[in-house]
Amino acid sequence: MSEPSEDIMEATFRALCEHGYAALTMRDIAAEADRSKASLHYHYESKQGLMLAFLDHLFEHFTDRVGSFDPAGDPDAQLRAFVDEILHPPGEDTTREFRTALLEIKAQAPYDEAFRERLTAFDEHIRENVRAAVAAGVDRGVYRDDADPDAVARFVLTLADGAQSRHVVAGADPDDAMAVFESYVESRLLADREVSA
Amino acid sequence: MSEPSEDIMEATFRALCEHGYAALTMRDIAAEADRSKASLHYHYESKQGLMLAFLDHLFEHFTDRVGSFDPAGDPDAQLRAFVDEILHPPGEDTTREFRTALLEIKAQAPYDEAFRERLTAFDEHIRENVRAAVAAGVDRGVYRDDADPDAVARFVLTLADGAQSRHVVAGADPDDAMAVFESYVESRLLADREVSA
Repeated sequence: MSEPSEDIMEATFRALCEHGYAALTMRDIAAEADRSKASLHYHYESKQGLMLAFLDHLFEHFTDRVGSFDPAGDPDAQLRAFVDEILHPPGEDTTREFRTALLEIKAQAPYDEAFRERLTAFDEHIRENVRAAVAAGVDRGVYRDDADPDAVARFVLTLADGAQSRHVVAGADPDDAMAVFESYVESRLLADREVSA
Repeated sequence: MSEPSEDIMEATFRALCEHGYAALTMRDIAAEADRSKASLHYHYESKQGLMLAFLDHLFEHFTDRVGSFDPAGDPDAQLRAFVDEILHPPGEDTTREFRTALLEIKAQAPYDEAFRERLTAFDEHIRENVRAAVAAGVDRGVYRDDADPDAVARFVLTLADGAQSRHVVAGADPDDAMAVFESYVESRLLADREVSA
């Protein structure tokens, strides 16, 4: 895999926000990066190759930002903070434009195995960490014995995708999805049905 | 608005399943409909015009299929059946392909007001009927007094979009989303916290 250079990745981000995915050309990205099209092609053979490098780059930033479950910490606080990070992506100014482009990229997944693999990596990171936090919560008696780590992970993945799509289509506030998750934790996971103030 | 003829609408459906939205041309649709491109253009000036007619056509089928809340009926049974219909679209063979094309269309919404209006009509139908069922459930003491019809509607919209996107990207089973909804009804809406067998 070629080493993505940071300035090309940033130019790709800006170009996706401006043009969307379907209409995006290597020329647009070269213009954003203030490079010649030839120099861009020297690094990335095709738009698809560049997009795969961009998805790898996003994945690195995503895992840095949302973090991983720490067995030494509080499982419930970590689960809530983790899901909150997932539902609230950074960069408010450009979030809707960028999520729109991501929705287009997701719609490519059934046709493109390499895209699908990259998108699956995000899912797997979410799945593993939600599972670990729920399992630790059950072990320590914070969560109910019948809490199912896999079912919670599926719910978080569905909620995150739904929140993203609602944001794109209807401008919905990600806080709504977080409120749903908080209420899910309180009613379905917490062992003693405490309602946090 | 031009009257969409049923055979063109069916051809559009098949062409979307086969080609996706971005790559779709009037020529593809004409070929599916076994018509000349000129005859298709006689009915629809552009791909965008045809897609708007197709979204109107889908909306009609959608409202027929999912129905509307009947104040004389059981609010809880109707709410569950309504959400079940929304999460489980018809036509298993082509569902994933078609939902993929719909995801592409949703990604156009921020750029195209006419698309956005059509997509909003689906949301509004869902919102109104969920709200009516929840409000009736609260009135009759089936649902808790603090059940918030608007919040439930937002949750259903998020869940439906999430389930659609999970289905496209990861092949997820819509039954998972329905299980989440059932558990939401049982833990957050039902007044007496009965768990259905």
